[in-house]
Amino acid sequence: MTITKQEYDFNRNVIVQPVGRGAAGRQDSVNLSYGFPATELLPVEALNQAALESLVRDRAQALHYTGGQGLDIIKNWQLRRLRKFGIQANDEHYLAVYGANQGIELTARVLINPGDTVWTEAATYFNAINMFRYAGAEIVGLPMDVNGVDVDKVEDELKRAAAGEGALPKFIYVMPNFQNPTGTTLPRARRERLAELARIYNFYILEDDAYGELRFEGEDLPAIASYAPDRTIYLGTFSKTLGPGLRFGCVIAPREVADRMRCLTLNSATSPFTQEILGHLLQNYDYDAQITRLTACYEARRDALAEALGSTFGDEVRFQLPEGGFFLWLAFQEETDTLRLAELAAERGVQTVPGRGFFAADGSYPFIRLCFSYCGEREIEEGVRRLAAAYFDSRR
Amino acid sequence: MTITKQEYDFNRNVIVQPVGRGAAGRQDSVNLSYGFPATELLPVEALNQAALESLVRDRAQALHYTGGQGLDIIKNWQLRRLRKFGIQANDEHYLAVYGANQGIELTARVLINPGDTVWTEAATYFNAINMFRYAGAEIVGLPMDVNGVDVDKVEDELKRAAAGEGALPKFIYVMPNFQNPTGTTLPRARRERLAELARIYNFYILEDDAYGELRFEGEDLPAIASYAPDRTIYLGTFSKTLGPGLRFGCVIAPREVADRMRCLTLNSATSPFTQEILGHLLQNYDYDAQITRLTACYEARRDALAEALGSTFGDEVRFQLPEGGFFLWLAFQEETDTLRLAELAAERGVQTVPGRGFFAADGSYPFIRLCFSYCGEREIEEGVRRLAAAYFDSRR
Repeated sequence: MTITKQEYDFNRNVIVQPVGRGAAGRQDSVNLSYGFPATELLPVEALNQAALESLVRDRAQALHYTGGQGLDIIKNWQLRRLRKFGIQANDEHYLAVYGANQGIELTARVLINPGDTVWTEAATYFNAINMFRYAGAEIVGLPMDVNGVDVDKVEDELKRAAAGEGALPKFIYVMPNFQNPTGTTLPRARRERLAELARIYNFYILEDDAYGELRFEGEDLPAIASYAPDRTIYLGTFSKTLGPGLRFGCVIAPREVADRMRCLTLNSATSPFTQEILGHLLQNYDYDAQITRLTACYEARRDALAEALGSTFGDEVRFQLPEGGFFLWLAFQEETDTLRLAELAAERGVQTVPGRGFFAADGSYPFIRLCFSYCGEREIEEGVRRLAAAYFDSRR
Repeated sequence: MTITKQEYDFNRNVIVQPVGRGAAGRQDSVNLSYGFPATELLPVEALNQAALESLVRDRAQALHYTGGQGLDIIKNWQLRRLRKFGIQANDEHYLAVYGANQGIELTARVLINPGDTVWTEAATYFNAINMFRYAGAEIVGLPMDVNGVDVDKVEDELKRAAAGEGALPKFIYVMPNFQNPTGTTLPRARRERLAELARIYNFYILEDDAYGELRFEGEDLPAIASYAPDRTIYLGTFSKTLGPGLRFGCVIAPREVADRMRCLTLNSATSPFTQEILGHLLQNYDYDAQITRLTACYEARRDALAEALGSTFGDEVRFQLPEGGFFLWLAFQEETDTLRLAELAAERGVQTVPGRGFFAADGSYPFIRLCFSYCGEREIEEGVRRLAAAYFDSRR
């Protein structure tokens, strides 16, 4: 009657994959891979001060499930801030989460029944692909151009699906500002049309705006959520502006979605202790000045990266300057094996992320994502030199 | 072609329910309902000090995804601490979570395929019932006596299921110490036998030990995980000892389970910022002295509750003194409508939780759960007077 352990039937959507990609990496390795903010610009002193003051002020309340005033302060601050992007939301639409990742996860769990279909930009954030798979979804990648996802083609696909050729999406996942990984920004007209399509074809839009505050040039565009608040689940986070270590983001969702998400989190995913500190910080903090510091720094680093790429690679690669965010998407010639290239580059002392992981479908993807936010300009130049050396060596 | 919003097919396992139960409640209401620790015993000063020192020490690292030394310090501390309950685990079995709730959720998501069966104690923690349902499980309640779940009967049920009469469980959820809500403790022999059964019948045990540190009398018993580490997912938390507001707990699981859980959390469910502070606290903190303070306080409150119940209810109710934890389970005579009684009691100014919510199956459950950890002794006595007044009034 004994059944061997090997036969245990785990959830079939949860596939074990290594977390992180610890490519061996030399001691002096330049990290152009993961999307970290610039350490030296994180507001350590201000948070220290806020921690001190808030712990004295709110005392034991911060240690209970319910917390003190922190969450309300943060919520009101975020709801006010989001008006900048045209979002008019209130308490019933708001949910505190431990990062945009949790917002993605909750969306997947609330909207997907196993076998449903989700459409994403191709390329897209690799962890979103995983979350959708864990929820049992089929994933379809949407074509992109220099302005992000091609909404005309999306409409064609929707028409075909509505006519019975393929499944309509339960939701479409997009990152309209400085997309991860391509750096593209979706123009106003495409946002508006996508919002209309959501209403016509009965799907939601999961609008991941992790990088939206970090615009170096051009004007802020209205969020998709501003055009279809009844159809959009909007994700914001402090991870890119104050620090991922806070683990604090928010979801703005239509009420029928937000209510379901609350059932899954019991409002207890974020720490009241951290909330008190963050709440205190926000009351007294010049956030706009922080954004200005960050964007000035990242713009200079983006330019340094672009210049270094131009001077080392010449016409061998193509790329587009992102208007903000963390990432530059480097396109190689068709036949380039970027999985191999990234390995060779790591041996040379520069960490990068090859394109393959950003696509749900199997295939050969001659891209590399470079993150310019974390390293200083000299380091970026050195990283690009190493990447170019690996590339030209491999082509000999 | 426009489809109305009403037809959107949300995940069918996520049913909107009110979070919390805001019974109107008078201003001077006595809260014997939710399981909060005693506010005055939370280590506010020590955490203040730890916050100060750790923010100075670890600085910006705490604000990155990866954090600084905090998590390693906590992990090592918890792994060492758990030896007290016979658990020998190491890094690969350890997962930081934002509370036992997240451990329950992850277990459900990793082990359950829709349609699978989960067995629980009946009565059990109401949020666990919800989590299992969200994952698509059928829930079967197991009979209990004064010593917790009746393992002989569990074995009978397993035999029947193995013979084709009903489904074998993917896992059995138990809270062996001072169970929520019944307060019962599972004896050593039952733990050992349950561990054996898990191996024979190919299921896991989800061992929720949220209250295990809070023993007032008797000796610590080995965790079920000590008998079958290969078959047990153990949940610990600081929520009951240092404060739920920290949102920090741990899972100890067999590697094949822990690896899958890591895929779902990306190791980013808890805040490195909080980790630094908590880690710093644990290095310099007399945790045993904190446990002594808590158990002394809770024992006195339990006794005050028991005495007040005896002197007001006489033979109208039955209950058993829990050896630890937060809860006392009050059994009324069969015909008592405790949903109604809890409402009447709330009007009288005492919050309690009626039995219904602790059972997955429909039915009439003549129980009320009383939490004795949060209120002082005089308040508890007043609460019981109000509850008794509501009860005797309703029987006139």
